Amino acid sequence: MKKFINAVSDVENEMIQGMVKAYPQYLRKLDCGNVLVRAERKENKVALIGGGGSGHEPGHCGYIGEGILDACVPGAVFTSPTPDMIYEGIKSIDTGKGVLMMVMNYTGDVMNFEMAAEMAADEGIQVDQVIINDDVAVKDSTWTTGRRGVAGAVLVNKITGAKAESGASLEEVKAVAEKAIANVRTMGAAISPCTIPAAGRPGFEIGEDEIEIGIGVHGEPGTYRDKMMTADQITDILLERILGDLDFTGREVAVLINSAGATPLMELFIINNHVADVLASKNIKVYKTFCGEYMTSLEMAGFSITLLRLDDELKELLDAKAVTPAFTC
Amino acid sequence: MKKFINAVSDVENEMIQGMVKAYPQYLRKLDCGNVLVRAERKENKVALIGGGGSGHEPGHCGYIGEGILDACVPGAVFTSPTPDMIYEGIKSIDTGKGVLMMVMNYTGDVMNFEMAAEMAADEGIQVDQVIINDDVAVKDSTWTTGRRGVAGAVLVNKITGAKAESGASLEEVKAVAEKAIANVRTMGAAISPCTIPAAGRPGFEIGEDEIEIGIGVHGEPGTYRDKMMTADQITDILLERILGDLDFTGREVAVLINSAGATPLMELFIINNHVADVLASKNIKVYKTFCGEYMTSLEMAGFSITLLRLDDELKELLDAKAVTPAFTC
Repeated sequence: MKKFINAVSDVENEMIQGMVKAYPQYLRKLDCGNVLVRAERKENKVALIGGGGSGHEPGHCGYIGEGILDACVPGAVFTSPTPDMIYEGIKSIDTGKGVLMMVMNYTGDVMNFEMAAEMAADEGIQVDQVIINDDVAVKDSTWTTGRRGVAGAVLVNKITGAKAESGASLEEVKAVAEKAIANVRTMGAAISPCTIPAAGRPGFEIGEDEIEIGIGVHGEPGTYRDKMMTADQITDILLERILGDLDFTGREVAVLINSAGATPLMELFIINNHVADVLASKNIKVYKTFCGEYMTSLEMAGFSITLLRLDDELKELLDAKAVTPAFTC
Repeated sequence: MKKFINAVSDVENEMIQGMVKAYPQYLRKLDCGNVLVRAERKENKVALIGGGGSGHEPGHCGYIGEGILDACVPGAVFTSPTPDMIYEGIKSIDTGKGVLMMVMNYTGDVMNFEMAAEMAADEGIQVDQVIINDDVAVKDSTWTTGRRGVAGAVLVNKITGAKAESGASLEEVKAVAEKAIANVRTMGAAISPCTIPAAGRPGFEIGEDEIEIGIGVHGEPGTYRDKMMTADQITDILLERILGDLDFTGREVAVLINSAGATPLMELFIINNHVADVLASKNIKVYKTFCGEYMTSLEMAGFSITLLRLDDELKELLDAKAVTPAFTC
């Protein structure tokens, strides 16, 4: 394993310290542990908390700030954060208007967020949650009952954060989150694995002429392995699954071409070139496109395509002001 | 070679088309060739043009838009753009207040930009240039006479673009660019190479326990090879060279920790954690930090550290509004 790290045991702590030192205008770390909250607390709003394992940077800590998340609780690499840390996060950001937990659909995350919510409820804090499950590649997986939450979470959090920032009630904010979740779909593929520092070796082996289709965001293999194809052929496979899962015809969409970590922007743009052409041919109108590293799996080479069906409300929320380390508009 | 591409001969064209389809609100491609200009032309300002080989995405096309570049001319991967395309870019963006060429110091780039400037001058367009040469690793290289231009160019272009956006004269804009160039220094290291599509194989071989110190941005090896070290040790080597080249003591600086492509944000933050500590110990005050993919070398695993000495004018220009695909503030 060759990485720019110091001791393996220090990876998460040093990363979080380095992140806070990079972005003190956005982020503050709680003294109790690895809980990051918005540097400038905003009163009288529904507070949003996200989280999940580390290794997905900039997800999710990079989205803390005006217009998106109020707190994020990063666990160890690809490991759910603990209930006590999530609870500390909830307590820290509650303004009395309630807290919405933006939970990725992984069994450990769901369980730990629910435990934290119970602890907070015992103290009189109003807590609710939504479960993000945008991955069309699987029905169930090693990590989940039901579909996994993957890169679509970035768009869901952006939209929900904008609604919260507007001063809406917990019920209204949750309704927008559920609308976004109901309209977002993602699928990905990878050509090389990543190495979890504590494991010390790659998550799987793959040949020079092979590709994994249907990857998640934890460095696991996809749902099946195939022979390597052209970018357009791979894109066709992913789009067919996404478009077969939800009817996008005649709708406006946001497109997110997300790098799994090591895939250069050059390749994401080549992929987007074909995505845009296919969508145009199917009478699906692209409202806005994002290409880059939004939700990664360490240094995995791969990408995912996310489509989000939009209406006027979702468009306005997607475009609303956000000022965070990884997403500013 | 395993990449998300179609035919090797189509890589640059498909990338540029995919980029324009992703960001039509920022970018417009000229019909004559691979020249990208700002979608909404702004009148009565000094126009800025950048360029260089492709493969550095988001550099430089990702910085076209309000507050940074007016045009960018991407060549083939790691290959200078041709004089005729640069000339077309200059003609397209000139508003009568003159054009400043932001040239990276590579022999091919310098020569081709100069030829384009002569062609434009023959048509009565006022053109001037600055040469960006922030890399402290080399005095001369295979590609340059004098130091190479590397990631520091992103900060130089941001600052110069802000000055141009303010309506300043060509002379004033050039003076700010030269001030930024005089105050910026960069050095990098890499642990794995990249593969230029047309070459089909990695630029160099390197062992599992080795690192290249003093890399440029064209996938070439560094100035020397060493045994792999901890992130802190590598950071110390790079910072020592940067701080030995220019006196930063007691000054405020902008810090850019730039990924060469495949290095995850997790590792950049670990590096920044130590950079921040070392700078604090030397009485160097960090004004603002940027961590991410700003100027890459395809899928190379590596990073660079850039320090830019700031004064009040440069701080104000660094913070000024910019709205581009890869840099918004």
